[in-house]
Amino acid sequence: MARRLLVIGGDAAGMSAASQAARRSDGRLEVVVLERSGWTSYSACGIPYWIAGEVKDGPDALVARTPEEHRANGIDVRLGVTAVGLDLDRQRVQVAGAAEEWVGFDELVVATGARPVRPDLPGIDAGGVLGVQNLDAGQRVVDVLRGSREVRRVAVVGAGYIGVEMAEALCARGLDVTVLQQAAEPMASLDPEMGAQVREALTRLGAEVHCESEVTGFATGPDGWVEAVHVADTAYPADLVVLGIGVEPASQLAVDAGLPVGESRGISTDDRMAVADGVWAAGDCVEVRHRVSGQSAYVPLGTHANKQGRVAGINITGGAASFPGVVGTAITRAGDLEVAHTGLGLAAATEAGLSAVAETVEATTMAGYMPGAEPMSVRMVAESGSGRLLGVQIAGGAGAAKRIDVAALALWHRMTADELIQTDLAYAPPYSSVWDPLQMAARKVARAVRDA
Amino acid sequence: MARRLLVIGGDAAGMSAASQAARRSDGRLEVVVLERSGWTSYSACGIPYWIAGEVKDGPDALVARTPEEHRANGIDVRLGVTAVGLDLDRQRVQVAGAAEEWVGFDELVVATGARPVRPDLPGIDAGGVLGVQNLDAGQRVVDVLRGSREVRRVAVVGAGYIGVEMAEALCARGLDVTVLQQAAEPMASLDPEMGAQVREALTRLGAEVHCESEVTGFATGPDGWVEAVHVADTAYPADLVVLGIGVEPASQLAVDAGLPVGESRGISTDDRMAVADGVWAAGDCVEVRHRVSGQSAYVPLGTHANKQGRVAGINITGGAASFPGVVGTAITRAGDLEVAHTGLGLAAATEAGLSAVAETVEATTMAGYMPGAEPMSVRMVAESGSGRLLGVQIAGGAGAAKRIDVAALALWHRMTADELIQTDLAYAPPYSSVWDPLQMAARKVARAVRDA
Repeated sequence: MARRLLVIGGDAAGMSAASQAARRSDGRLEVVVLERSGWTSYSACGIPYWIAGEVKDGPDALVARTPEEHRANGIDVRLGVTAVGLDLDRQRVQVAGAAEEWVGFDELVVATGARPVRPDLPGIDAGGVLGVQNLDAGQRVVDVLRGSREVRRVAVVGAGYIGVEMAEALCARGLDVTVLQQAAEPMASLDPEMGAQVREALTRLGAEVHCESEVTGFATGPDGWVEAVHVADTAYPADLVVLGIGVEPASQLAVDAGLPVGESRGISTDDRMAVADGVWAAGDCVEVRHRVSGQSAYVPLGTHANKQGRVAGINITGGAASFPGVVGTAITRAGDLEVAHTGLGLAAATEAGLSAVAETVEATTMAGYMPGAEPMSVRMVAESGSGRLLGVQIAGGAGAAKRIDVAALALWHRMTADELIQTDLAYAPPYSSVWDPLQMAARKVARAVRDA
Repeated sequence: MARRLLVIGGDAAGMSAASQAARRSDGRLEVVVLERSGWTSYSACGIPYWIAGEVKDGPDALVARTPEEHRANGIDVRLGVTAVGLDLDRQRVQVAGAAEEWVGFDELVVATGARPVRPDLPGIDAGGVLGVQNLDAGQRVVDVLRGSREVRRVAVVGAGYIGVEMAEALCARGLDVTVLQQAAEPMASLDPEMGAQVREALTRLGAEVHCESEVTGFATGPDGWVEAVHVADTAYPADLVVLGIGVEPASQLAVDAGLPVGESRGISTDDRMAVADGVWAAGDCVEVRHRVSGQSAYVPLGTHANKQGRVAGINITGGAASFPGVVGTAITRAGDLEVAHTGLGLAAATEAGLSAVAETVEATTMAGYMPGAEPMSVRMVAESGSGRLLGVQIAGGAGAAKRIDVAALALWHRMTADELIQTDLAYAPPYSSVWDPLQMAARKVARAVRDA
């Protein structure tokens, strides 16, 4: 009998692991995937654009590979199956159901993902207080917006990436959007001067943005549906509430089985994505190594999930791959503003025990004399003394944000600002000033390092 | 008396050197710049967009810093002055004029730039056979297009970067454009399958593109103005001809003075941009080290000129900076097609004595389900055996080409395809597929390396 690889979770990480293993083992490994929903390999990141109406044919359009397509590749995908217990000694996983039922394995991949943070606040369980963490959740929001209940006012709680994207989406649908955010500015991963640009962009879209506004509860109507969001003494009326206050690792199964987790409760793996003998983990349920801070971090993103799943699948089938960590790159859009960051902001750098300086330059997305040139801010953080780059933030017009990848590679290689100045970046008037905005920022921060 | 820094050439390299030196020396160095034209610090790269009518207020709009601005920074800019002799022993430069006149120096920066290649063909000196190498040349083209002579048919000779940009510009003006190109496809720095996309993009703009068409001469009318371009037995009627067949180092002054030049006749410098004791060179008149091939190369681009000038200016004033070479990054636009490359194409890699494999992927500029997603091809060349990346080429829709900078940094750090796969590039649906197109290409070429 073939050895069995059992994968818990059929989204990015799980299906990447399953696909690699199935392809590489060429039938010598039985690959079984347990997925609690009815979907595989979908883009949760696409949900805001589906809700906005920008992506038609959701949720199907967001599915990269269907269960049928995976099955055609020899993977035994079992939908609607929830793993509820993990017995490492007997190498088996218990699945939910009326009768006790176990599925055995020789190799196990835990890819249980993340779940949205739902703070324990009065009224949190009211109707119409929704998340957007997966396709079923997205469908619920779409159903409410299409349903018979009149929805005019929507409150978005949290202004991280998901909150910002949902605010944009709901504004695009012509709704009255209120964003309630605990921190001083949206997107706490940015330094406040950059976050302020996001707030302004959301305001330009028509959203009302309230910062330093901690939600204390939800008022509920007689039918159990949400009616307002409370912040201190203020009640913001809302026909629908979208929660965008982040996610946490769905690692309870692993914790209960005694697998190691870190401070974030993300599962601890080595670079090969191994957790224990024959046990692997990947995706939004694991912690990763942050290459800039040198510390463990919880960075749940589809891009890491895919890579980690692939690495696990290769190693399970006798290959040698490693996931070398992250530098903390992320990107989003807030109306006409493109936003991205990588590495550490000034506050995060200080928190990580690093002495740092930061500078911001105001540049343009093209040569300044081109008619399509739009403003573009680049903020760069460098280590005092060494000048090593610690983080970069970008906010600007069309073509600004994806340049963060250059900064990501610079951090990856522990470049100094002085080194980045000399690199051979592409220049032509429709794309850049002759000194690339990133190099302008590098020049400024390099001077600040020298003058410090 | 203050020591004198004399700079020959007042464009990117020369003025960068002069500006750095003036700022850093704080008046202890007299900085004199000899410039033959009436302009300083201008963007020759912007000329096609000025001619297209996209940039208004040319040529002034293309000037980054005027002579007056430089003078306000303490630089003695002397316009309309052509250096005709260099006497290293007596540390002086002869300038053109009725009487013999010399300008002495303690330190010299040779930043004499490039001049367009003008092949010695019958009729090459006819009226209306023009280049676009500097603002005066650009002005002549604009003058012809605005003048009393009817211009309907324009022939562009050469389909490198300048030729492609000029073809685009002239199409934008509604002219009948014929592109005549010696090689099999436009942009010989690309592999032919990518160059074919450029040809198709120019055709979509309305240009007639003839490849493998070597120009043999120009027919001239009774008034001495060009009437047609000859390619073998064919005469392509033309009221105006734009030459885009590249440039060569304007290094004769240096050669005559006995300064070292390389195979391209570009001046040879060390990493500090020093040529000899007290003599420096920078910009389009120098050779550089190509970090991928390991060989000397002639890569005349404003971006290198600015960096080299800055490095020279720092070193002249007691600082320590070095120009670490190039990886051969370039970018342009052909109508709706963005094009870029870095490093070596497959042919160039083979020519450089490297054994290489190449793969191309067809990706999209955004997540495939986003309505704005446009096709994007990435071609990647890697060294056989090691998998080290040697070159990347990109052609695609909006947002495609500037991603070449990621590849440029990967080449800079001698990354393998396998290493690039694992890097932390930004993903959100409006910007990328979850596997970035560059990483898709890296996966494909990594497999090709393993399977070879």
